Amino acid sequence: MASTDSLPSLRWGIIATGIISSRFAADLQINRPDVRAHHSVVAVGSSTLEKAQNFIKTNLTAETRADATPYASYEGVYNDPNVQAVYIGTPHIVHKKNALDAIAAGKHVLCEKPFTLNARDAKEIFDAAKAKGVFVMEAVWTRFFPIVQEIKKKLHEEKIIGDIYRSFAEYSIMDYNEMDPKFRLRDPELGGGALLDIGIYTVTWTRLVLDPNVGDKAAESSWTGSQILKNGVDVHSAGIASYPTLNRQGIWSCSLFDNFSRDVVKVEGSLGTLTVVGKHHSCPQWFKVEFFDKTREPIRYEPPKEGFGFYWEADAVAVAIAAGKLEEENTMPWKETLSVMEILDNVRKSSGLVYPQERA
Amino acid sequence: MASTDSLPSLRWGIIATGIISSRFAADLQINRPDVRAHHSVVAVGSSTLEKAQNFIKTNLTAETRADATPYASYEGVYNDPNVQAVYIGTPHIVHKKNALDAIAAGKHVLCEKPFTLNARDAKEIFDAAKAKGVFVMEAVWTRFFPIVQEIKKKLHEEKIIGDIYRSFAEYSIMDYNEMDPKFRLRDPELGGGALLDIGIYTVTWTRLVLDPNVGDKAAESSWTGSQILKNGVDVHSAGIASYPTLNRQGIWSCSLFDNFSRDVVKVEGSLGTLTVVGKHHSCPQWFKVEFFDKTREPIRYEPPKEGFGFYWEADAVAVAIAAGKLEEENTMPWKETLSVMEILDNVRKSSGLVYPQERA
Repeated sequence: MASTDSLPSLRWGIIATGIISSRFAADLQINRPDVRAHHSVVAVGSSTLEKAQNFIKTNLTAETRADATPYASYEGVYNDPNVQAVYIGTPHIVHKKNALDAIAAGKHVLCEKPFTLNARDAKEIFDAAKAKGVFVMEAVWTRFFPIVQEIKKKLHEEKIIGDIYRSFAEYSIMDYNEMDPKFRLRDPELGGGALLDIGIYTVTWTRLVLDPNVGDKAAESSWTGSQILKNGVDVHSAGIASYPTLNRQGIWSCSLFDNFSRDVVKVEGSLGTLTVVGKHHSCPQWFKVEFFDKTREPIRYEPPKEGFGFYWEADAVAVAIAAGKLEEENTMPWKETLSVMEILDNVRKSSGLVYPQERA
Repeated sequence: MASTDSLPSLRWGIIATGIISSRFAADLQINRPDVRAHHSVVAVGSSTLEKAQNFIKTNLTAETRADATPYASYEGVYNDPNVQAVYIGTPHIVHKKNALDAIAAGKHVLCEKPFTLNARDAKEIFDAAKAKGVFVMEAVWTRFFPIVQEIKKKLHEEKIIGDIYRSFAEYSIMDYNEMDPKFRLRDPELGGGALLDIGIYTVTWTRLVLDPNVGDKAAESSWTGSQILKNGVDVHSAGIASYPTLNRQGIWSCSLFDNFSRDVVKVEGSLGTLTVVGKHHSCPQWFKVEFFDKTREPIRYEPPKEGFGFYWEADAVAVAIAAGKLEEENTMPWKETLSVMEILDNVRKSSGLVYPQERA
């Protein structure tokens, strides 16, 4: 392994001080054996200075705290010359504005998922990044987990379950009926519903277990979908992905009524099944391979993990930026974000779900 | 219970002497405590007299054998004045011709599933039956099982899992790659593929666990679907049913690659889940109810069963005919067959799957 001194480093500005930003910041400070880049948080922006100061105090270590400047606005972060990349941890309805503002200020961007409300908005961001010559990536952190890379290797390189036939991906959380009507998942004004919040993971899992490739290299596929709406948001969404050239089909579903299943995705092949398990389907804990031939011992794989696992995507961002790339090409290229957003757009068309922000 | 002497009786003619006809005939002769009608097999038609004679010898008891006339043609059965109802156990590509011929001869008809290749053909049969004043029913035997009636009661009347949210129905069998290319499931000329053969059960399960009603009384629903085709038949089919007025969604799938799962259907509700288990998804063995509240004991229900279970649908046919009905109104009315065939037609549209018989 190369000396860590030769690794790229990246100075982050974080906007929004909610739970996801906290976890991201905490993760960046973990010392890991598989570190691929050095990270520092040099600016934090919130609606008030106090919130930004509190965030720094709570989430950064005593050693790194002094290097971070708090701002009472997101603009402070965008305009801080010390910031190289902005991490956008705001609610998804403002991702587009935040990303465009950061890009306009010449900053690289890592933006939480769902990247935008629709594919059109995503394309606008990528076009702006291209024009400005800055890096942008949707923070689909799950894809960067080593366990996910191991799953892809087992499935697509080692072909451990033989020919892949089908996959079933399911993710359900919460209880719609018990949520405050103003809670973001119930509120159409906040882009609520299951699809954008968790359905995006079931679509992601379906894509990565059925197809070794992403973005431009992804195989031809057709996606259907259907939704049950309640008060302007989807409580259930589901759909089917068909890959005619690969002879594979993926069934995916999500719901705002938790079914307490921890099976993230199950993949069927000619030799057996691979099942991924995790409390949160975005954050797989372990997987098992079971063979139809019962004389073959099942395989169980559970890698150790520290923190939440945001550092892996952060590393990929730092590596790509150091290489002068505008997009992360291997795991989460722009085209992959656009493909997923188009899938979600089409599912919404099936039910006529239009967010208030999308109305003319 | 009324004396069995007051029960209706029905004299059957059976056409085709394959395995399904054998099982049907054997079932009719079983003495059951829950008998609702008396049945006798009075005619059997096959391509040769020998086959018809062998069928009678093999499948009818020594006491009933003498009452059954063997025929070297199906026409013999249609024209036998002793036959009241014809059981059609032929391959599904000839169901339409067989049913229309039997109806033209003035016979009542119980026709195996899938009833026809498409909804248009099904309607033609029902129109003919109406014009002739005879009874017709598609033999979706699963719906008549007492365990299925118990499942419907648990779900829809007792509301044992509270509000029903979603269902997952899956049925996969065989291994496409290991089938003889001339085997019916691989042969487009024989209406092969997963959808018509087993997908019809996953659609059926979805309908009966999500909706207490059938036919004209069924709730509004929209169905999507998608298929993977190989050499002119579907190896995987799957789809989503959305019931907007009931806030329910059903995910169904089928495949010609067995995944060795014995879960027939899983239903999710606000209080827990109900899972039906069976080696063959057409023939449920038991079901369990598990509650999210872990202080509540799970419930397991496995009724005893003799034979295969064809007698329950046969009883329903006899009762309806005795009541002067042209269709079985409670469980498998004409409209229900048409609704299911329309769903299957639409799934095939998604992949462009057209059977040779449907081409102009």
